[in-house]
Amino acid sequence: MTAVKAYAALSPATALEPFQFERRALKPHDVLIEILFSGVCHSDLHQARDEWGGSIYPMVPGHEIVGKVVLVGEHVKKFKAGDTAGVGVMVDSCRECKPCNDLLEQYCVEGMTGTYNNYERDKSAIAQGGYSTMIVTDERYVYHVSGQLSLPGVAPLLCAGITTYSPLKFAGVKAGDKVAIAGLGGLGHMAVKFAVAMGAEVTMLSTSPSKEADARKLGAHHFVLSTDAEAMAKLDSRFDVVVDAISASHDYEIYLKLLALHGKLLVVGLPSKQPQVNPFELIKNRRSIIGSMIGGTKETQEMLDFCAEHNIVADVEVIPMQYINEAYERMLRNDVKYRFVIDMASLKS
Amino acid sequence: MTAVKAYAALSPATALEPFQFERRALKPHDVLIEILFSGVCHSDLHQARDEWGGSIYPMVPGHEIVGKVVLVGEHVKKFKAGDTAGVGVMVDSCRECKPCNDLLEQYCVEGMTGTYNNYERDKSAIAQGGYSTMIVTDERYVYHVSGQLSLPGVAPLLCAGITTYSPLKFAGVKAGDKVAIAGLGGLGHMAVKFAVAMGAEVTMLSTSPSKEADARKLGAHHFVLSTDAEAMAKLDSRFDVVVDAISASHDYEIYLKLLALHGKLLVVGLPSKQPQVNPFELIKNRRSIIGSMIGGTKETQEMLDFCAEHNIVADVEVIPMQYINEAYERMLRNDVKYRFVIDMASLKS
Repeated sequence: MTAVKAYAALSPATALEPFQFERRALKPHDVLIEILFSGVCHSDLHQARDEWGGSIYPMVPGHEIVGKVVLVGEHVKKFKAGDTAGVGVMVDSCRECKPCNDLLEQYCVEGMTGTYNNYERDKSAIAQGGYSTMIVTDERYVYHVSGQLSLPGVAPLLCAGITTYSPLKFAGVKAGDKVAIAGLGGLGHMAVKFAVAMGAEVTMLSTSPSKEADARKLGAHHFVLSTDAEAMAKLDSRFDVVVDAISASHDYEIYLKLLALHGKLLVVGLPSKQPQVNPFELIKNRRSIIGSMIGGTKETQEMLDFCAEHNIVADVEVIPMQYINEAYERMLRNDVKYRFVIDMASLKS
Repeated sequence: MTAVKAYAALSPATALEPFQFERRALKPHDVLIEILFSGVCHSDLHQARDEWGGSIYPMVPGHEIVGKVVLVGEHVKKFKAGDTAGVGVMVDSCRECKPCNDLLEQYCVEGMTGTYNNYERDKSAIAQGGYSTMIVTDERYVYHVSGQLSLPGVAPLLCAGITTYSPLKFAGVKAGDKVAIAGLGGLGHMAVKFAVAMGAEVTMLSTSPSKEADARKLGAHHFVLSTDAEAMAKLDSRFDVVVDAISASHDYEIYLKLLALHGKLLVVGLPSKQPQVNPFELIKNRRSIIGSMIGGTKETQEMLDFCAEHNIVADVEVIPMQYINEAYERMLRNDVKYRFVIDMASLKS
């Protein structure tokens, strides 16, 4: 067993606070990783505060993890001590169903084991996440990370990155495609980077004129205010793909209208109020709305390799662990470009 | 020019009444068809009463047309006098855009020319539909109909048939797939027949227990009351495809839940109130919602050939032209199994 320092939520109503627990002794396929950086996802806050229900406490959040391999179990083949490695949103799955066999473990028929706010598959303990100094994970759910990339910016690739990369690949986005990204936050800014790297002509759609300069810095070729009905009307039936990365309440109609024949609205934003769909806009141009949830182990590694090849990382603000509760408040105000990442050295000293 | 008898709406507020007008003289690619049967689509009523806005009067509705070719223009190659032929929802399109070149003319970038409630492409006249004794249509938008099929039941294939066949083919439905059909009306009953003929295991979902016997008669292998939460929960993540052929107000959530990995909700029902989508259910299993609008000229012919091969026609109630206003009232009460079809002989005598 390995004693680790962490920050945990002990109840929905209390701030995160220092916490100590033990990581399991290494099983033959386990990898022990010293966590260097841990991204802060909006879902961490939702779950710490039990806003989706069913939260399990104590809870150490964090599922955007990057670090160094310290020790490996006797049967581990993929990793050795010293490797740079990442862990994302899941740490296990049934490994027997069709999705698992297809390496789409995020869609495991029995349900994947989330990195935190879940019991381990053998019910032996609560799975605890990345706001901690060490993690022990089965090698199947651990990824190689290029040492060439800036590590704080790598952490968010494990959730925000794969969440946007996977649907763009599923939709077959390729050079010359016209892609619009709606919503410039943690997910949206990654979607812009990926779509640009895939060779698409990228348009950022936002309700905030102030985001135009940022969008262009990220590589977007065009910027359109989604509240400008006249400008939006000019984009009618123009795009092959629109990525909906909006977490605020909204309906799908204005984005559906933008889609050309066989155009796809890729949904990764999860507003709590259910969006409405205008079915007349849906049947026009044989449009579709496609949901997507993170990515499987194979595609997550592919995404990290793609990032190494194209030198893509998330834009981040590095914070010490002790700043997490303030970071949550700023995240609620959208006051972050575009992800907080905890420097875990702050917890070791 | 050919003088024809018809029934027309002269205003949104008046009943359909006898009407006479002239069909254009045959152009080189035109086909003159003596109409034998004309299906009654719910959209006829919507448009006659201007419920979607922008209706053009006088209006001769009808876009489910089957008859005999009487005369062909000098350059017509596909048809000769005496052929059995059909005309559907469109009679023209720009013929130059990518969708037109791909024979997906229903998605013409400039907009297809509807069979009625539209101006002809050259603005020379109002296009008038099938509640008439004759029609003149460019051969591209005319289809061959097998003389082996019962002709009254063929008429609805030109709209209700292709509207359900096209999305099932687009979704790649094949033998052994699990398909659910929601809503047993003009569209739903065709969807059941097609899905069964494609070799799928078909489940009918309906809010009316009384429809079980009918669904089984149409070939459905299973029947589940969509209001029975317990029975619906047992179908969680079960289907490859759910066809939504419901025109009444409803949300998509309960149907999304039924879809397995990569499952598709095919939307052909057009409720006037916009359905809500639960994005959490959409991202699970990488589900999609796909809209579909009738079918192109190539696929419409393919569908008619498929029907000839599998002996598929719509279940219809044949009525005389003079009954049309009463038929509309019964259609509003869903009092028809499953399509009224006008015997145009009633207008000739």
